[in-house]
Amino acid sequence: MRDLEELKARVRAFVAERDWERFHSPKNLAMALSVEASELVELFQWLTEEESGALDGAARRRVAEELADVLWFLVRLSDRLDIDLLEAAELKLAENAKKYPAEKVRGDARKYDEY
Amino acid sequence: MRDLEELKARVRAFVAERDWERFHSPKNLAMALSVEASELVELFQWLTEEESGALDGAARRRVAEELADVLWFLVRLSDRLDIDLLEAAELKLAENAKKYPAEKVRGDARKYDEY
Amino acid sequence: MRDLEELKARVRAFVAERDWERFHSPKNLAMALSVEASELVELFQWLTEEESGALDGAARRRVAEELADVLWFLVRLSDRLDIDLLEAAELKLAENAKKYPAEKVRGDARKYDEY
Amino acid sequence: MRDLEELKARVRAFVAERDWERFHSPKNLAMALSVEASELVELFQWLTEEESGALDGAARRRVAEELADVLWFLVRLSDRLDIDLLEAAELKLAENAKKYPAEKVRGDARKYDEY
Repeated sequence: MRDLEELKARVRAFVAERDWERFHSPKNLAMALSVEASELVELFQWLTEEESGALDGAARRRVAEELADVLWFLVRLSDRLDIDLLEAAELKLAENAKKYPAEKVRGDARKYDEY
Repeated sequence: MRDLEELKARVRAFVAERDWERFHSPKNLAMALSVEASELVELFQWLTEEESGALDGAARRRVAEELADVLWFLVRLSDRLDIDLLEAAELKLAENAKKYPAEKVRGDARKYDEY
Repeated sequence: MRDLEELKARVRAFVAERDWERFHSPKNLAMALSVEASELVELFQWLTEEESGALDGAARRRVAEELADVLWFLVRLSDRLDIDLLEAAELKLAENAKKYPAEKVRGDARKYDEY
Repeated sequence: MRDLEELKARVRAFVAERDWERFHSPKNLAMALSVEASELVELFQWLTEEESGALDGAARRRVAEELADVLWFLVRLSDRLDIDLLEAAELKLAENAKKYPAEKVRGDARKYDEY
């Protein structure tokens, strides 16, 4: 897989071959994305923070699968709405740089809290 | 923004400049990702499916921002766990192609349901 | 089951018998609650709104189970933090009555949107 | 507030006075419930587990508000589908007692993991 553009095209083809476009309203895709995000959370919910940073190979593969599921719906939804993900990320980074000036929020959970 | 690699590097620098690594256990990042996914859902919750496919410019920009937030944490978490997102997506596409053979699930919500 | 008080006591005993208190930090319980809420969403994600209001018996039972799981963690978390759920609901109803005056928001999705 | 029955009746009246029934398909209510659950998670995401168990008064009140919001939609959705929450909880407790025999899962995160 070269890049997000290739993934977008392959997801689009996958969906078309199965005639699943009818289910893919932005509303439904947003729901599905959040469900996949929760399947990711489920893998971590009873682990301590420390344990979550020291996963074994099998656990890491399960996490990778859930990350892939989230990406799948993220790419699909942005395709459906014709939104360029990398451009949106660029704008967001610029906005966050203004909102959280490094010298003001350094290491500060209270301000970070608002993020 | 060229690609996910550039985004990963810029997010990493953003976090380092603010000394926020201490908050970024995989457990916490998974939580934050799911919270952003729900902020996306919130934009759609009272819309009909049809309305969700006909957003005006302002609504589309709000959606783009939430998609960017989800991508931010997706990239950050995969960086933290040293998982290659595009490789994970490649594996998942292959797996889904086996799990949902086009000729068997075409247009079928019941089987799709299990996805 | 008579009421929420009985449920709270029975959930507490269930947890104590299994020595699971150690996993039940408020942080973890909040995660678990949101995961159960997403399992509920999963049951509806590919249904139309109309279909979601006309579930058959089997689907209704699956929904009831997920609602019970959400309630389980809601009661457990409020017990853990010594929060009275019905009192919190009372306060919230009063607050919402002020925030959404009936004569101003009647049938209005835009204002409801902010809820 | 005496009990869940009273809350159900008051939520129902609140919704009727605002003519909001039209937005309350089970699909939409499930989405809204999960969004409220994530607002709860947001309050905990950057706290350590220890900090999450030692909230000050202001933080506890914010948690209580989010718990009330989750309960609001839980009660509303169960009313909409004519599901008795306490009865569902009773069934679930019985089922969980079989699924997690105390003597087998005591203090065991791995088995609990599957919950």
